[in-house]
Amino acid sequence: MSTDMAPGRTWRDMVEDVSNWGRWGEDDQLGTLNLIGPDEVRAAGSLIRRGQVIPLGVPLDGWLPNSRTGFRRNPMHIMVVDGGDDDLAEKTKGFVSPGSRNALQVMHGGFRFTEDMLILPSQAGTQWDGVGHVYYDGLMYNGYPAATITSFGASRCGMEQAARHGVAGRGVFLDVARHHSAAVLPSEYAISPAELDEVAASEGVEVRSGDIVVIRTGAWGKFLVDRDGREYLLECAGLSWECAVWAHQHNVAAIAMDNSQVEVLGDGTHPLHRLAIRNMGMLLGEIWNLEALSEACAVDGAYEFFLDAQPLDVPGAVGASINPLAIR
Amino acid sequence: MSTDMAPGRTWRDMVEDVSNWGRWGEDDQLGTLNLIGPDEVRAAGSLIRRGQVIPLGVPLDGWLPNSRTGFRRNPMHIMVVDGGDDDLAEKTKGFVSPGSRNALQVMHGGFRFTEDMLILPSQAGTQWDGVGHVYYDGLMYNGYPAATITSFGASRCGMEQAARHGVAGRGVFLDVARHHSAAVLPSEYAISPAELDEVAASEGVEVRSGDIVVIRTGAWGKFLVDRDGREYLLECAGLSWECAVWAHQHNVAAIAMDNSQVEVLGDGTHPLHRLAIRNMGMLLGEIWNLEALSEACAVDGAYEFFLDAQPLDVPGAVGASINPLAIR
Amino acid sequence: MSTDMAPGRTWRDMVEDVSNWGRWGEDDQLGTLNLIGPDEVRAAGSLIRRGQVIPLGVPLDGWLPNSRTGFRRNPMHIMVVDGGDDDLAEKTKGFVSPGSRNALQVMHGGFRFTEDMLILPSQAGTQWDGVGHVYYDGLMYNGYPAATITSFGASRCGMEQAARHGVAGRGVFLDVARHHSAAVLPSEYAISPAELDEVAASEGVEVRSGDIVVIRTGAWGKFLVDRDGREYLLECAGLSWECAVWAHQHNVAAIAMDNSQVEVLGDGTHPLHRLAIRNMGMLLGEIWNLEALSEACAVDGAYEFFLDAQPLDVPGAVGASINPLAIR
Amino acid sequence: MSTDMAPGRTWRDMVEDVSNWGRWGEDDQLGTLNLIGPDEVRAAGSLIRRGQVIPLGVPLDGWLPNSRTGFRRNPMHIMVVDGGDDDLAEKTKGFVSPGSRNALQVMHGGFRFTEDMLILPSQAGTQWDGVGHVYYDGLMYNGYPAATITSFGASRCGMEQAARHGVAGRGVFLDVARHHSAAVLPSEYAISPAELDEVAASEGVEVRSGDIVVIRTGAWGKFLVDRDGREYLLECAGLSWECAVWAHQHNVAAIAMDNSQVEVLGDGTHPLHRLAIRNMGMLLGEIWNLEALSEACAVDGAYEFFLDAQPLDVPGAVGASINPLAIR
Repeated sequence: MSTDMAPGRTWRDMVEDVSNWGRWGEDDQLGTLNLIGPDEVRAAGSLIRRGQVIPLGVPLDGWLPNSRTGFRRNPMHIMVVDGGDDDLAEKTKGFVSPGSRNALQVMHGGFRFTEDMLILPSQAGTQWDGVGHVYYDGLMYNGYPAATITSFGASRCGMEQAARHGVAGRGVFLDVARHHSAAVLPSEYAISPAELDEVAASEGVEVRSGDIVVIRTGAWGKFLVDRDGREYLLECAGLSWECAVWAHQHNVAAIAMDNSQVEVLGDGTHPLHRLAIRNMGMLLGEIWNLEALSEACAVDGAYEFFLDAQPLDVPGAVGASINPLAIR
Repeated sequence: MSTDMAPGRTWRDMVEDVSNWGRWGEDDQLGTLNLIGPDEVRAAGSLIRRGQVIPLGVPLDGWLPNSRTGFRRNPMHIMVVDGGDDDLAEKTKGFVSPGSRNALQVMHGGFRFTEDMLILPSQAGTQWDGVGHVYYDGLMYNGYPAATITSFGASRCGMEQAARHGVAGRGVFLDVARHHSAAVLPSEYAISPAELDEVAASEGVEVRSGDIVVIRTGAWGKFLVDRDGREYLLECAGLSWECAVWAHQHNVAAIAMDNSQVEVLGDGTHPLHRLAIRNMGMLLGEIWNLEALSEACAVDGAYEFFLDAQPLDVPGAVGASINPLAIR
Repeated sequence: MSTDMAPGRTWRDMVEDVSNWGRWGEDDQLGTLNLIGPDEVRAAGSLIRRGQVIPLGVPLDGWLPNSRTGFRRNPMHIMVVDGGDDDLAEKTKGFVSPGSRNALQVMHGGFRFTEDMLILPSQAGTQWDGVGHVYYDGLMYNGYPAATITSFGASRCGMEQAARHGVAGRGVFLDVARHHSAAVLPSEYAISPAELDEVAASEGVEVRSGDIVVIRTGAWGKFLVDRDGREYLLECAGLSWECAVWAHQHNVAAIAMDNSQVEVLGDGTHPLHRLAIRNMGMLLGEIWNLEALSEACAVDGAYEFFLDAQPLDVPGAVGASINPLAIR
Repeated sequence: MSTDMAPGRTWRDMVEDVSNWGRWGEDDQLGTLNLIGPDEVRAAGSLIRRGQVIPLGVPLDGWLPNSRTGFRRNPMHIMVVDGGDDDLAEKTKGFVSPGSRNALQVMHGGFRFTEDMLILPSQAGTQWDGVGHVYYDGLMYNGYPAATITSFGASRCGMEQAARHGVAGRGVFLDVARHHSAAVLPSEYAISPAELDEVAASEGVEVRSGDIVVIRTGAWGKFLVDRDGREYLLECAGLSWECAVWAHQHNVAAIAMDNSQVEVLGDGTHPLHRLAIRNMGMLLGEIWNLEALSEACAVDGAYEFFLDAQPLDVPGAVGASINPLAIR
């Protein structure tokens, strides 16, 4: 199989070739996750051979690469009740007004609990870009008007569609950085479709319909060392837009990577996002930590596994913080 | 196997019997998830036979049963950028100050995106109570002082321990409500260890070491109909505290239920929480939606499955919103 | 002065009469606060005669009348560091990893602090509706397109306009409930312009250009007793839409009340909000606590005072939580 | 009056001298705001001579100096409903499920509104440090145990105490930077009590009992130019700890400054905070923008004014975002 694109073709020339609008019905809001059905899940389950569980999510803390100024901030984990409140049942005796929300009321009988909450921008860490995350020309996947995504959330193509279908299936790992014997690919390096095929061949793994393709650039490993948020967000190696065509030709269900935007940023017009999310209805996974997976696969040479990357069921969401598990 | 408890024994009499303090080392912060190792995961993987994927999480929206007043509120899903911002690149021409954070800056070249965030109390919906969620007498699991859980989070026994181990293994489903041919068990009904054994025997399923035992009361199904938050939070049927002893005897890795607190609330002193979380180091799952799983298992009579209930990697967290998948 | 409206005129017939579009220039984003200049402020200052300070804000807590489901929730006050963290510097010795965000790092040398944050929906409690809060037919105050209020905030008519001008001047108090010797006006009672004139005359106070007119229905006093949020939000007594015309004729700078929406809700089409905010550019104050002010003014019969109701400087905000001071 | 401190005395030697514990009763939670009574307010009102209103708050936006990593982040202003939702009532026809929280339901009849919320760390911008913000040796102001400040807020000495008393009175402006003909005082420069007296004398203004003393270093003006958050947070000029003694001797009600911590940071043990907040019960104002006030006072040489710096009424709060007004 080849991408077979004539020289000079732009991403806009490929829109009709890759479009999945109407492919799963006029009312479809799920997109390429339709490619994962019972057969694919059963086959993926058979890949659990070692009992090895590798989490692919990054810690959702204040050390993520996001800025302190914009609308995409690092998450905040906030303790609502903590262990320092233990003694207070004793210490606050005589200080507590009737009717107050004090620990004396809720911690009676010696029972003690702690509790917490998150302020969680969905694009801050390991995530799925949802089907409703990208649009252009006023339309999103399957022709729904972008205006159906209101301040109240996505009334079409919300993340609850994926959450209720389930995001689990066969994961195929293309370790491009290791293929080049590099800790990390060079900044702004654009991975081509041919290179994806080459890595798969070298690893002895085949990309099949319904696969979730997981691709490593080494960018997260580098960020863990230098914590250079600006470089990680703006200058990572990534896919060329032609890889969206490749994904379509391989009937890929989703792509996930260890960089910040899957594709190389280039001029910021995001052609791969447009093709994959808006025209194909495909989830894109970003900021995945693939370092441990890279080590594990290199040891035994097995680059396929069961992958569960299930999002929370947040109705109308356009992105989702996740902690995927590769299970081998 | 039997719980064999002399009449009149209280939960405090059982603390030493069930205690796992020191069982996996003085430094252990993981608890009963230690019971899930490669063998258990591999065996669980073999249960993926039909390719059926059943999400067990409830929608994280404003219709959850939590109050409007306290510290445990319903989650908020907030759009940070929405589809109504599409036209504004045109409409705001001439209105945009240089340097403003306006969509003209970020949506150049025709590319459009949406973005969202969550305000997410971890106890609001489908969740794991973490190992750090419950303590008494100043100590938590494995003898760590409760004061190690500060305003900055749990410096011991945080949810990142489970997240980095992975929470996936064999799920065993005890459908107590269906066993009694009831849509929902009566309010404040206390399920006994003997009843759990009876349901397992009736279903033809065996509870093994490292299992995640999933137990249905029908409470969430009832809440979906009547939306009676007060009843759901305070009066559900649940486990008697003796079931913690049962869980210890069966080497159960975790228990999850469709009610709000696993155990019957009774006098609010939470003996099962104390035994299971603080003394055994066990995750407790609450507010799971087991309605679809109940239907599926009743059809083919298979009450075991692969279960992935992986939390986000939030360092220092004491609870975790999850969307578990039962895969059969 | 009279409102002089022919019978049968609707609010739409009055739009041109009350419109302030262009009145303070084509570029104005401030609206009727333009009516408060140095002369008005100096005159208002002279009303500080007793040294009496009366706060008019309600507590921003979980007992406010808002629902647990929608997008307008009660505020949350969250402790980020609390006094229970005191001992932990001692207790966590030996438990703290190098590099952790633990209190040992930040509380060195015996110094201890506490810290907090708010999740604060601007419409939840005592507030100003900003000039950008209401529009119709695609346009807001002074003809700016509504689309200039994007997900990033109001690029025109944001609350920073009022915050940087200052919201302080002469307050005039029309205690309609007390005028009728009622603790609270009947549900859905509509106050007319003639009634406002009548109350002012009875109180011996004159409404002047640049005044902030503060009007009491008794609704907040009733809510404090019965905590009936639904009634408070939907059925309070309030102004008839004709009072917007009255306010225009009196050159009023702003109106504030102790009910939830200033005007009677009626069919929910909010004609007074449309006239006052969109056509006149006027701040509307809602959910003010006027109980203590009512007592104080009744004692000495002085119904004018210095009023400071300054909002936080939040660029692009369309509403503002405030705690106004009446100083007499 | 002089501070008269023997050489070599440390701040701990001065605790008893400055202590206000018990001064206003054993139950007092208000502290030095007790020094502002009706006489002080009335006298302050007489300073409103020009009708000039000068806001002293900084914009609460993402450009504040706080870090992206810690627990003290920049505020987030979030639009919950925006002007881009206008057309959607039309555009989403046919896409809206019955029962959904869609704009079709809430924007009937052509009425349109926008709405917003804040995530607001109280220490992020212009603020009051509350009486409950600082403690040591387990005790806070007036001898209350620090443990009375729980995860649920300060059950003693909360910000509601100040909010319900009202924070308004005579402001006295000591423009130390201008006194030295400097745009900004040197980094880590420590202002002494003698220097405060000298500036007051030079300005011809007297510090009286109940005054709120506002002191300018030029630090905010510098930050506006270079946006060097690290320097602003850690290296600003500020008061020496002896100025707390000076404030006690002058019966000052509160001190506010344009730097980040009032006092010079030094070794981070915060002796002035300890003396002023914990021993004296005094509010400290930080991150005030005094640039415009500096210009105005220099023009006419009048360094006293009416100051309103009223906090929101947040029960149990230990800090407060404010937008103070200097009215002259």
